[in-house]
Amino acid sequence: MRGVFAPFGVFDIMPRLVMKFGGTSVANLDRIRRAAKRVGVEVAKGYEVIVIVSAMSGKTNELVGWVNETSPMFDAREYDAVVSSGENVTAGLMALTLQEMDVPARSWQGWQVPLKTTSAHSSARIEEIPTDNLDAKFAEGMKVAVVAGFQGISPEGRITTLGRGGSDTTAVAFAAAFDAERCDIYTDVDGVYTTDPRISDKARKLDRIAFEEMLELASLGAKVLQTRSVELAMRYGVKLRVLSSFEEMDDNAGTLVCAEEDIVESNVVAGVAYSRDEAKMTLISVADRPGIAAAIFGPLSEAGVNVDMIVQNISEDGRTDMTFSCPTDQVTRAQKAMEDAKTSGEINYHELVADTDVAKVSVVGIGMRSHAGVAAQMFNALKNEGVNIKVITTSEIKISVLIDRKYMELAVQALHDAFGLEKAA
Amino acid sequence: MRGVFAPFGVFDIMPRLVMKFGGTSVANLDRIRRAAKRVGVEVAKGYEVIVIVSAMSGKTNELVGWVNETSPMFDAREYDAVVSSGENVTAGLMALTLQEMDVPARSWQGWQVPLKTTSAHSSARIEEIPTDNLDAKFAEGMKVAVVAGFQGISPEGRITTLGRGGSDTTAVAFAAAFDAERCDIYTDVDGVYTTDPRISDKARKLDRIAFEEMLELASLGAKVLQTRSVELAMRYGVKLRVLSSFEEMDDNAGTLVCAEEDIVESNVVAGVAYSRDEAKMTLISVADRPGIAAAIFGPLSEAGVNVDMIVQNISEDGRTDMTFSCPTDQVTRAQKAMEDAKTSGEINYHELVADTDVAKVSVVGIGMRSHAGVAAQMFNALKNEGVNIKVITTSEIKISVLIDRKYMELAVQALHDAFGLEKAA
Repeated sequence: MRGVFAPFGVFDIMPRLVMKFGGTSVANLDRIRRAAKRVGVEVAKGYEVIVIVSAMSGKTNELVGWVNETSPMFDAREYDAVVSSGENVTAGLMALTLQEMDVPARSWQGWQVPLKTTSAHSSARIEEIPTDNLDAKFAEGMKVAVVAGFQGISPEGRITTLGRGGSDTTAVAFAAAFDAERCDIYTDVDGVYTTDPRISDKARKLDRIAFEEMLELASLGAKVLQTRSVELAMRYGVKLRVLSSFEEMDDNAGTLVCAEEDIVESNVVAGVAYSRDEAKMTLISVADRPGIAAAIFGPLSEAGVNVDMIVQNISEDGRTDMTFSCPTDQVTRAQKAMEDAKTSGEINYHELVADTDVAKVSVVGIGMRSHAGVAAQMFNALKNEGVNIKVITTSEIKISVLIDRKYMELAVQALHDAFGLEKAA
Repeated sequence: MRGVFAPFGVFDIMPRLVMKFGGTSVANLDRIRRAAKRVGVEVAKGYEVIVIVSAMSGKTNELVGWVNETSPMFDAREYDAVVSSGENVTAGLMALTLQEMDVPARSWQGWQVPLKTTSAHSSARIEEIPTDNLDAKFAEGMKVAVVAGFQGISPEGRITTLGRGGSDTTAVAFAAAFDAERCDIYTDVDGVYTTDPRISDKARKLDRIAFEEMLELASLGAKVLQTRSVELAMRYGVKLRVLSSFEEMDDNAGTLVCAEEDIVESNVVAGVAYSRDEAKMTLISVADRPGIAAAIFGPLSEAGVNVDMIVQNISEDGRTDMTFSCPTDQVTRAQKAMEDAKTSGEINYHELVADTDVAKVSVVGIGMRSHAGVAAQMFNALKNEGVNIKVITTSEIKISVLIDRKYMELAVQALHDAFGLEKAA
């Protein structure tokens, strides 16, 4: 419901698009030019465009390196002031490049928009994006607002950053605030695949994927989009397209991440994900009493252990075995936390067995909600390959299993075949 | 007349100091640490310090290079947005370094202070520096405000830069606004000399020099301080000290640029300056009529020729010769401007003779005001060395001569000797 009252009449406002370019897409002046050409094409179609840019690749790492070398326990407010400068450079250069192409453009730093955030420096959350300033410039004829991604301003007037990958979140937040038709995330991969193409040559690029599926895949390590940006897109219904800035432009390029109802037909399972560096930890013969789970997982959480799957065996003679999984590089920390809890008498167990040779394989798909038998089909496929399942967990749209790491690739390929993912629905 | 009313009594405000570090003084993390140590010493003495920093040396050139490559006729607003980022990085790193030394410090970008400027992007002038924000933080216990130099904010809310060398001007403006006891400019030379030490090994570092003398020396090419910063210091009575960041700290280090009345004793002549790349241009047989000077120098000014000395010969039969000097690289431009003016009938002359083998040598000193005979002494010294004088101009505190370039070093040495500059007054 936007409109501009101009002296000579009432005009409909132009459709808007958000385009986000990551570090590799703006790594040097040539790539900035290529990105600007894509922006120019959308402007020619009649869009007003908000471009969100990252720092030129390598720049943020350089700045972070300087901060760490200067001050290992740095003041996050100064970290943010230093690190945000990389995006400012790209924003100015992109605006200049567009101007050279006769596209009316200007750069905006976070505080100029202003993109208002919390004061949680280095991992701030977006609170509000007032649209007045940009709207006024669009009304004056600006066609492209080039916004420095990943940064904002705190209530105290200091520069904040949203944390690594925050440029994706910036892009989605702008798309929501400005009611954009779509938010295109240009990156160095050409979309979301049914599984990792390095593991299965039958992996197929998905045309569409539901927000929920994308969230499960992202948290499983398919690092195409930052999790927070997908959550935000889902909450505000922002259509998100992931596509490569290194391929020819095409309206159907990439993968559209969208609401379930925008997906007409889809496979029951959208994709097969994996996580290589998992460890299976088993506390043997734990005294089974009310509150035992809290007594175990409280100390683990405090020690910074990211517990993923949890399985409790049947209790026998008042004792039970408790199994959980965590990343392999947190095993030592988990062991120490458990030993300390045993010493202090919080918990009592016979032995802690760590199996660091496991991997997690998951099938994800919103179709599971309405299709029974997906779990059975999955377990069958693994059985047929002789893969033993160590732990199972399920959610509404995901089934995950822990297996021996040596079977991981075999399992991924078998499941990709079993669910027929090489063919579109 | 500043004071802070605190809940437990009225405290006198602490004395303040401005310290400015140029690009070579903050070229890398080690140098930033060395600069921070100097700041720490002043804080330990009881000063509240405002530190003005330049970009790490080389960074501004890199950014300017990118802008020029992207857009040869760039939008100065975007140029400013890009180029100002270099100072922001140094400011954050300097604040972190000071914090590591347990000195309460924080960084300030131009818009955060805010340093308000005109909208003349890339060569903006400082309009106002409100002191409230920094004063509030000093009152809360901040000991050092690290301010990104060279940048400000326009009335339109966009980032401006003050042009190259603008960090000196920023420093002086802060010293004036915050009533600082002194403004120390740390650079890669250890002070102002009686002449260029590369030309005379008798050159002596001056302990003090008057603003007016410094201005004459700066405009003559002794590039220790930016001219605008000296003008500003003179207007607001800011004591300016030029000193090296590569030498041991010493309260008497460097050269103090100050008001005439703060200099107790001084030589009649403070220094001998030179300018190598001068050209002498003579318009032969110009019709002498009222307004002829305007008819000649108007077109030269419009053509961007920086005319320095002007001499008009005695008129004879209604015609005269007009001589002026300009930088050698502007000779072609001057010739074209004069030919065009002749073609259009604005002026009439017989010939334009360009002598590009001349140099300018000047003696500068506020003592000249009260001492007669300085000119005679200068001309005698040159005569004794057989140096022929081609053009003479004088001001209240400066006498300049154009001579053949081959005699330039000889003339500088002879004048340095003649006025006894190797010894302090």
